[in-house]
Amino acid sequence: MSGQKLENKDPMTSKFKFSLHETDGLARRGEISLPRGSIQTPAFMPVGTAGTVKAMYPEQVRGLGADIVLGNTYHLMLRPGAEQVAALGGLHRFMRWPHPILTDSGGFQVMSLSKLRKISEDGVAFQSHIDGSKYLLTPERSIEIQGLLGSDIQMVLDECTPFPCEKGPAESSMELSLRWAKRSKDAFGERPGQALFGIVQGSVYEDLRAASAAGLQDIGFDGYAIGGLAVGEGPEEMKRVLDFTAPMLPENTPRYLMGVGRPEDLLSAVARGVDMFDCVMPTRSGRHGQAFTRYGKVNLRNARHAADPRPLDERSTCPAASEYSRAYLHHLFRAGEYLASMLLSWANLHYYQELMAGMRAAIEQGRFAEFATQTRKGWEEGDIAPL
Amino acid sequence: MSGQKLENKDPMTSKFKFSLHETDGLARRGEISLPRGSIQTPAFMPVGTAGTVKAMYPEQVRGLGADIVLGNTYHLMLRPGAEQVAALGGLHRFMRWPHPILTDSGGFQVMSLSKLRKISEDGVAFQSHIDGSKYLLTPERSIEIQGLLGSDIQMVLDECTPFPCEKGPAESSMELSLRWAKRSKDAFGERPGQALFGIVQGSVYEDLRAASAAGLQDIGFDGYAIGGLAVGEGPEEMKRVLDFTAPMLPENTPRYLMGVGRPEDLLSAVARGVDMFDCVMPTRSGRHGQAFTRYGKVNLRNARHAADPRPLDERSTCPAASEYSRAYLHHLFRAGEYLASMLLSWANLHYYQELMAGMRAAIEQGRFAEFATQTRKGWEEGDIAPL
Repeated sequence: MSGQKLENKDPMTSKFKFSLHETDGLARRGEISLPRGSIQTPAFMPVGTAGTVKAMYPEQVRGLGADIVLGNTYHLMLRPGAEQVAALGGLHRFMRWPHPILTDSGGFQVMSLSKLRKISEDGVAFQSHIDGSKYLLTPERSIEIQGLLGSDIQMVLDECTPFPCEKGPAESSMELSLRWAKRSKDAFGERPGQALFGIVQGSVYEDLRAASAAGLQDIGFDGYAIGGLAVGEGPEEMKRVLDFTAPMLPENTPRYLMGVGRPEDLLSAVARGVDMFDCVMPTRSGRHGQAFTRYGKVNLRNARHAADPRPLDERSTCPAASEYSRAYLHHLFRAGEYLASMLLSWANLHYYQELMAGMRAAIEQGRFAEFATQTRKGWEEGDIAPL
Repeated sequence: MSGQKLENKDPMTSKFKFSLHETDGLARRGEISLPRGSIQTPAFMPVGTAGTVKAMYPEQVRGLGADIVLGNTYHLMLRPGAEQVAALGGLHRFMRWPHPILTDSGGFQVMSLSKLRKISEDGVAFQSHIDGSKYLLTPERSIEIQGLLGSDIQMVLDECTPFPCEKGPAESSMELSLRWAKRSKDAFGERPGQALFGIVQGSVYEDLRAASAAGLQDIGFDGYAIGGLAVGEGPEEMKRVLDFTAPMLPENTPRYLMGVGRPEDLLSAVARGVDMFDCVMPTRSGRHGQAFTRYGKVNLRNARHAADPRPLDERSTCPAASEYSRAYLHHLFRAGEYLASMLLSWANLHYYQELMAGMRAAIEQGRFAEFATQTRKGWEEGDIAPL
């Protein structure tokens, strides 16, 4: 398929556009066009939970090559509130990120963070984890909130099936998500310049995933996400599910694997035809002292770094990785300094963006498999030897 | 005195040099020359407690116009340890600050932070507040530590007299500090390119301050600090003590008011002939939501900012103050985000450096009094009206 070019043939109905530039095996090199800018795919989206990518200035995030960030509907609807953000000119202006933003539906975090949540056909009733105040999140309200935020790519409200899940409940949950997807689409209507993505559910069951993917395509979305993974099923099971789910999705729309993941997950999923990712891992792990590097994971809290004058990675083009000593980074973590989180969030997001850029270049050059092998080899060789 | 020029006439014995360029009333415009760079005075030194100015990248600190930062001997001797920093090439390399660094003696924080401290003629025995391990800080060990850190301007170990303090104990304490100052000087010896400052004590008593200042000058130091202020005596008493203490110090060496202070304290002290300051206030207050501006103090946690799209100060040249909305800053503080502390530490240090630059320019132009009046007027007029 290398060199094959596919384009969304209907650019008149929406300013959202996906162009597939190259393929290499199942891996895809594409571009999403939106009024606020284009997104080179495969893309990793840094997570800007509550209107900020934690411990990063927005200019830094952009400087790393991120074309898009993710905002969390759940966090923003609770604080400062979607109407408040809208009154302030929308999320882009609020957080000083003029480039594309994707928002989730809020559903995942309602289930993982809120109190006293109760799902019904209508939606999810819950209490804020911040102050206990009561909310009802329906498909329509989620789309309303994402519109108030001004999100460029919006997600349908779905129920993220837990893992493990028996087939019966997985099927019921997937069908509820499909009905909510239809309501989300109806609520979204036509919004030129904005996009709405459906989310494939169905747990680890191929026929359920197929039914979900088909049902969503009957409704029709600008892109399709794969939900319900990275919830404890493990990397082998995730790959197995991706192996049969990705081919169920249209070739001419983006495919987004939600909440994934580790660098090795990104490699595996791109190899299976996924175009977009988001995950808190680079920033959350960074705040806890874990670095992602071409050597694999490096825990800077480890005492082996205490007297090591060498940088995290002398070849990195990120100052956080190449200009500060491991001894200093270790000290900052031990001392609980802000700069510890600032530097390692920066270094990790840099590594993630560099990894995506490397994959994009490799796909263009038809050497994705070689790139993946070399990258995994670096991780397996591990960190530089202690002094 | 405007236009008077004084210089240290003995540049052969030390590469440390202080040049007094201009005076305006008692206010002094000068320059400290050190091998690592020059310091324009009056100068405010951001505090880099444990080898980092909290929530700031070193490049940002430099970018604000800071010529020098302060490092805390107490924090660094406990973690990572002075010998460790020396083995890593010194504090400048460790924290990536190639410009001048002033270190305190450690004495002040031993008394305020450590456990089970006991003062004797020899020094201060104490237990670390981090892990309870035991240390003995003597004048000689403090100088040794500051040398290991590679500090450009080192401070003698002194006892910071508490407030209030009866005259008898204040006199005994001041005399102990004088004996420690002599031992510090002996330990320091000759270190070309590095400087040692004495510290005037004597609480609020003019004759004790005079005896301290005279005793220190008998020993001979590169600069003289005024210690034992900003310890609860209040701004009026501080000004009264400065009024009689500053003239006791040589004209041709820098005068450093330790641990001060609020912007109004800086104005008052420069007007009384002080050249150098350090204080955690801009960064510590910034982490707690309090901004220093040309309008005076602004508490961004206050609900009046929640829906305010205006920046902290539209005329500021600091992006943190001019490009983010008050509503966003308020949100970041409510949400406990790193970026809250990062932005307000930046904005506050910017304001402090801008205030110092304004004072320096005003002294050069012989309009310091006018500058002080205008600046105080801005603070008194207060913040912009709520929307």
